[in-house]
Amino acid sequence: MARAGLTRSIVGVDQNGAAIEQNVVEERPLTIYLNSQEIVTAMTIGDYPEYLALGFLRNQGMLEGAGAVTRVDYDDDLDIVVVRTDQPTNHEEKLKKKTRTSGCAVGTVFGDMMEGLEGLRLPEAELRTSWLYALAAEINTTPSLYLSAGAIHGTVLCRADQPLVYMEDVGRHNAVDKIAGWMMQNDAAPEDKILYTTGRLTSEMVIKCAHMGIPVLASRSGFTAWGVEIAQQVGLTLIGRLRGTRFQCLAGADRIVWDADLSRVKDEPKKSARKAST
Amino acid sequence: MARAGLTRSIVGVDQNGAAIEQNVVEERPLTIYLNSQEIVTAMTIGDYPEYLALGFLRNQGMLEGAGAVTRVDYDDDLDIVVVRTDQPTNHEEKLKKKTRTSGCAVGTVFGDMMEGLEGLRLPEAELRTSWLYALAAEINTTPSLYLSAGAIHGTVLCRADQPLVYMEDVGRHNAVDKIAGWMMQNDAAPEDKILYTTGRLTSEMVIKCAHMGIPVLASRSGFTAWGVEIAQQVGLTLIGRLRGTRFQCLAGADRIVWDADLSRVKDEPKKSARKAST
Repeated sequence: MARAGLTRSIVGVDQNGAAIEQNVVEERPLTIYLNSQEIVTAMTIGDYPEYLALGFLRNQGMLEGAGAVTRVDYDDDLDIVVVRTDQPTNHEEKLKKKTRTSGCAVGTVFGDMMEGLEGLRLPEAELRTSWLYALAAEINTTPSLYLSAGAIHGTVLCRADQPLVYMEDVGRHNAVDKIAGWMMQNDAAPEDKILYTTGRLTSEMVIKCAHMGIPVLASRSGFTAWGVEIAQQVGLTLIGRLRGTRFQCLAGADRIVWDADLSRVKDEPKKSARKAST
Repeated sequence: MARAGLTRSIVGVDQNGAAIEQNVVEERPLTIYLNSQEIVTAMTIGDYPEYLALGFLRNQGMLEGAGAVTRVDYDDDLDIVVVRTDQPTNHEEKLKKKTRTSGCAVGTVFGDMMEGLEGLRLPEAELRTSWLYALAAEINTTPSLYLSAGAIHGTVLCRADQPLVYMEDVGRHNAVDKIAGWMMQNDAAPEDKILYTTGRLTSEMVIKCAHMGIPVLASRSGFTAWGVEIAQQVGLTLIGRLRGTRFQCLAGADRIVWDADLSRVKDEPKKSARKAST
């Protein structure tokens, strides 16, 4: 359920000292509980709190052994989401070990970041270069909070050349978690999906994508060395610096089918081009 | 002390399937201890681990009441920094309450984010618009890891129109903490400084800057509503979207002295312009 008021108009001055009104993105605390246990407080723009809570807990591996999710309750006044499962959970130990991940990819990872990735191999899949160009062109020209207020990140769940679900947030880790929550609620199969992010391909993004079982992660931004290493380890296709006709693939290039005619791919129009988060 | 190998060359393919070699930024875990207590593991490019640890602990308010810092030991093999103080410390309680802050600003904030800000008013200071343009022009054309490898953030400590210290990291919260550590070690006065960041002006960036006692925070990126609110509350001058001849000030405009002749400020050359982190 989306919450109203994702942006606010704020009055200030410009370089000439003239009064201006700037549309600024909101940033609100949302405290996530798993059954009776407080897990974390996340700063978020505030839409889809249930998806964010579900996806965060899932991507942290905190729902494993918890059985079915029986309820997700959101309290608008208290800014709290409570996720209830039919088996009891206790993550006291896990909560003690925190890793503060990198920059834009970030958030907090509880327990061992690599936990659950041992022996994981992502499924066979095909990635047509024509899909990449079609997705980039559509995503970069889709109206978004970014275009209206800036200071926000987007993540898009795609199938072949079709964007399926757009999520945005102040932190892209939140946007990805919202996608994970949406996939859970809608029982979406991951193996034929492509995850697109406006953000950098750091270890946390690669790990989240792997936990979600999605074999392809694409971005217009750059890579980190550890992100590439993990992608190679789990067999994830990692596409970065996807802009106009260009991209780089530093892991899982074996999935790529080179079907695009580059001479017919338009370079992106300057005005509609999103900035990469670098 | 800087650590070698901040970037690594990785082999991949480009949009034509041709082999490429891309220079990619490193991302390594660094575990920070305060005396005998493990506080957090941060993902970092790995330079200036002592500044990062000191600045992180200081900006978290964890050094208050701890007396003098007696030693900072860095272990290159274990990726551990131990900060020792002459008074014992115990942050068990604080470590229980975590806030996962927003996006690029991020990291983990322990305890109440607003703790220590009550009643804080930043010192009187003058901010000449000519300084802003001079700083932006110099910073945007200074060679950096960003320009060579991307996927990195920069923070610069400045006085008047002079950049004094550049720090970069995968996460800009780390870059700011390194600046705070440098200021502690060098006994730098904050009241005549300007903090410049490539990143967004979120609540965490504003809070860190306020804790550091620096009255001006400038960025080429955008704002969040809560970041602006906190800046107004503590009397911080917040300059955003500083690009070419343009900028916006959404808090503390009273410090601005309009001395720049805009007709003589050059718009930034496309090729040297950094992307904003949005």
